[in-house]
Amino acid sequence: MSDGSRLILALDLVDVGRALRMAQDISPHCFAIKVNWPIILHAGPQIIREISRFSRVICDLKLADIPNTNRLIVERVRELGAWGVIAHSFVGQDSLRAVVEAAGDMKVFSVVAMSHPGASDLLNRFHDMLIDISMKAGVYGFVAPGNNEAVLRQIRARAGGMKIISPGIGAQGGDEVSAVAAGADYVIVGRKIYQASDPVKVAMEIDQRLSMML
Amino acid sequence: MSDGSRLILALDLVDVGRALRMAQDISPHCFAIKVNWPIILHAGPQIIREISRFSRVICDLKLADIPNTNRLIVERVRELGAWGVIAHSFVGQDSLRAVVEAAGDMKVFSVVAMSHPGASDLLNRFHDMLIDISMKAGVYGFVAPGNNEAVLRQIRARAGGMKIISPGIGAQGGDEVSAVAAGADYVIVGRKIYQASDPVKVAMEIDQRLSMML
Repeated sequence: MSDGSRLILALDLVDVGRALRMAQDISPHCFAIKVNWPIILHAGPQIIREISRFSRVICDLKLADIPNTNRLIVERVRELGAWGVIAHSFVGQDSLRAVVEAAGDMKVFSVVAMSHPGASDLLNRFHDMLIDISMKAGVYGFVAPGNNEAVLRQIRARAGGMKIISPGIGAQGGDEVSAVAAGADYVIVGRKIYQASDPVKVAMEIDQRLSMML
Repeated sequence: MSDGSRLILALDLVDVGRALRMAQDISPHCFAIKVNWPIILHAGPQIIREISRFSRVICDLKLADIPNTNRLIVERVRELGAWGVIAHSFVGQDSLRAVVEAAGDMKVFSVVAMSHPGASDLLNRFHDMLIDISMKAGVYGFVAPGNNEAVLRQIRARAGGMKIISPGIGAQGGDEVSAVAAGADYVIVGRKIYQASDPVKVAMEIDQRLSMML
């Protein structure tokens, strides 16, 4: 992994062999690797431990359950060696607080707005309130859409020095340079890298483009 | 499993051996068994297939991701033999619609209100809108709190003939008979059963008490 990189690889693959090779190939060029439930359901939970051997792993679990269940999930991914975890804030402060308490040294990022069209049905209208809930719960940083610059700028303005990680780059229409310019600390990129004919080259290019902005 | 029962067992255990024995012991007295992420992270995803051999399994995944990720998760639990799946509606109609489309014959229940205190920070204020989003997405039924009769009655009034399943019974303060009286079709009970000195006896008593209400 690369400590100075602003790139997070979204490992949204369900072919386990391909996912592991991709993780190993891209790891030198990114800050962390984000895994989510589909790969866990295909490879089993040990995939978290396996990737944690050579990279920071952010478990993008979009946790949205009652406090006790959130706690049990977080305790387990912490055991498996994850570096960070993503949880929802809309379920309320107590549920998110349970995540933060169980996380220990793990970094907790809370979702305060999302990148898909349906997010505007309800969720994205409340990003101010979701930031308040998240701050009171004691999270480390926020997840905010990299393909919605207006919303991202508003969240940046309220986030102070807290970290923002942004999905929605590439396949969902966002651009990594614009996302960082609008306030993202790290951009999360998946399909744009692993669907490329030369994924390492694309990852290196994104990494270099972002490092020139520092 | 018991087709006429209104009891759903919440298998909120992380000790895999104990969870499987509990599932087998209680299965004759309940309509379905609800599993969630903690047991999947401890036992691996195959636990869904294992319990599906002798019971309906509802995967309480509280899905709350973008459409493509929701779809990948649902396709996998369907392969594993689940009977039903629980998803959030607040992330928007497109995300929930992706769940319904990938579910095929599986029943999709959407969360329109929750049972923990923090649910009133934001989520539970919007149950009317969440029901609308859910109906447009084509879900089979709703998850609504069995320990909040006022909210449950309001949801029942808008739900028409759609099924409502209700957690929050026992440890979270709800009562199974009151929950059914307020509009639940099925009640979800966990700790009250598996923390009892005689879990089978407690499950049979709940099952009988509810069957007398039919």
